Amino acid sequence: MRAAIFNGPHSIQVGQRPDPAVSAPTDAVVRVVLGCVCGSDLWYYRGETPHAKGSIGHEFIGLVEEVGADVRGLTVGDLVIAPFKYCDGTCPHCRAGVSSQCVAGGAFGDGNIDGGQGEAVRVPLAGSTLVVVPGSGHSDEMMRSLLALSDVMCTGHHAAVSADVKSGGVVAVVGDGAVGLSAVLAAHRLGAARIIALSRNPARQEVARAFGATDILAERGEAAIEAILELTDGVGVDAALECVGTAQSMATALGIARPGSVVGVVGVPHGIENPMETVIFRNIGLRGGVAPARTYIPELLPDVLAGRINPGRVFDYETDLDHIADAYAAMDERRAIKSLIRIETKEKRR
Amino acid sequence: MRAAIFNGPHSIQVGQRPDPAVSAPTDAVVRVVLGCVCGSDLWYYRGETPHAKGSIGHEFIGLVEEVGADVRGLTVGDLVIAPFKYCDGTCPHCRAGVSSQCVAGGAFGDGNIDGGQGEAVRVPLAGSTLVVVPGSGHSDEMMRSLLALSDVMCTGHHAAVSADVKSGGVVAVVGDGAVGLSAVLAAHRLGAARIIALSRNPARQEVARAFGATDILAERGEAAIEAILELTDGVGVDAALECVGTAQSMATALGIARPGSVVGVVGVPHGIENPMETVIFRNIGLRGGVAPARTYIPELLPDVLAGRINPGRVFDYETDLDHIADAYAAMDERRAIKSLIRIETKEKRR
Repeated sequence: MRAAIFNGPHSIQVGQRPDPAVSAPTDAVVRVVLGCVCGSDLWYYRGETPHAKGSIGHEFIGLVEEVGADVRGLTVGDLVIAPFKYCDGTCPHCRAGVSSQCVAGGAFGDGNIDGGQGEAVRVPLAGSTLVVVPGSGHSDEMMRSLLALSDVMCTGHHAAVSADVKSGGVVAVVGDGAVGLSAVLAAHRLGAARIIALSRNPARQEVARAFGATDILAERGEAAIEAILELTDGVGVDAALECVGTAQSMATALGIARPGSVVGVVGVPHGIENPMETVIFRNIGLRGGVAPARTYIPELLPDVLAGRINPGRVFDYETDLDHIADAYAAMDERRAIKSLIRIETKEKRR
Repeated sequence: MRAAIFNGPHSIQVGQRPDPAVSAPTDAVVRVVLGCVCGSDLWYYRGETPHAKGSIGHEFIGLVEEVGADVRGLTVGDLVIAPFKYCDGTCPHCRAGVSSQCVAGGAFGDGNIDGGQGEAVRVPLAGSTLVVVPGSGHSDEMMRSLLALSDVMCTGHHAAVSADVKSGGVVAVVGDGAVGLSAVLAAHRLGAARIIALSRNPARQEVARAFGATDILAERGEAAIEAILELTDGVGVDAALECVGTAQSMATALGIARPGSVVGVVGVPHGIENPMETVIFRNIGLRGGVAPARTYIPELLPDVLAGRINPGRVFDYETDLDHIADAYAAMDERRAIKSLIRIETKEKRR
């Protein structure tokens, strides 16, 4: 089958991978309909985080093509959302709602396991991993929002939940990438009264407003901290959501968080300074990490299907698998917030 | 008046300080009855954390001697507990329960403000700071437990609350100092089903057991992590309480915490490695810091007065103000868990 192949920094091309097939009785094969590029894929693309050569892409929705003998709850033809990590649903971490740390789990598109940037995926532990989307004939807009549940919307939600965003609270989101914008939407969904989005990019500001941001600040670094402290009478925000992972974004989040609050951290850390002095001497907590998407999808899906949230708005660039390199370049050059890949199977597999 | 004077590392002596007097209408003067030495005083004593020359000691109980015109709720003769930081009770942080970050607050015994290791203290913002102890004729055992509410018990409680210790949960406490032992007691009070205390000191093990520890482990470092993972079927504990602040103790706490949990951190950090990779990739949160003792005392005091908890058991060494240097040396040499200072006013002040 055709699939994106990661060959090293700045080198992503369409290539061939073996056609997926059920190899364990708990597997399913899913034909990918929509995939996309994640901000974390960009770290690999830029050579800032290592990635094995081979399959890549961990976000996708698709149609079930084949189901192993031990898979319950899935039927050939089902439209499914794949959370970006597969999981068994029964280990202590899954039962505690932390499916992203499943003891039997793993990630799609890790170089070896099929990725979402390809025609099809063998999904391990399919019955406990894939979430079936009810209904049929969903609009393209709906399909884009369903795709967003695979990772980015769940990750924004994780930032908000980890920071304990409450109804009526004051929230600030550091980062105007797709995760940051999703965090704005998640905070809005959870009832935050005031949502301050940090962005100086007009297109991203517009999405932030559409997602519920009440204040947009173009300031960065110390100036952003000063501006937010001024907006909050010197108190700081009830919940700061760190959606980037750089030293500056983290320093900003720690600087605007009110004492006693928890910074929701979902950015992959790159060069972040040791935050322990702030944790101790300013009473600022830290919580977040890898979003347990499988845990969150059932909670978020009804809101997507009912049109109450439309997280697919983060996709502002689209192409097909043949142009996968463009999809990465557009995000790398910040021409796109997030690139969507429409995937059609061109040749009959097996 | 006579008071302990910090002159630099390893140099604490009794000296003279000006007799305290009400200088602002919100002040009160408290004659100290019992003071003590804190683990954080040891960092100053050892020269590992800077401390201004002058007053020292931030934990005390005593009798109200003089009350400013604007102080409400205090009467001369009242027995009071001083939380280790004074606070106004009305700022946004106080109202949010984070009295340790009061915008108008400060610490006792900072070199300038009177310390608890002295005959008397001018207490700023006295009406919102001091907690009156009801009743009279309290036993010596009770007085010791009331003193523990000034800091150490509240700090142990803060570790437990920050880590979200729940009824029925599995807790591990890293650190067998007075704070760690208090954290054991706090976890027990909050209903933890299993409390694993790390200690290889028989006297401390005994207090830990009396406070509710169900398991005592003598292992340290990697061996402690392995032992606790084995005790918890590889899952880790629901709540790890970090009550030391060193690189090893923090690494142990992070290593035994189950994914999705929050490590309660109250140890003053000394050489701790950057924990961000663990926060993100293992979904381990961090929360704690400077305990809001003023917020917690009203919650803990009834349990002390009713004899349901006896946090004063952490005091296993006692002396008087003249022997303040011994009180420090006993803790520095780990001969004492925590040193209590009985303070009598020898000369009439003013």
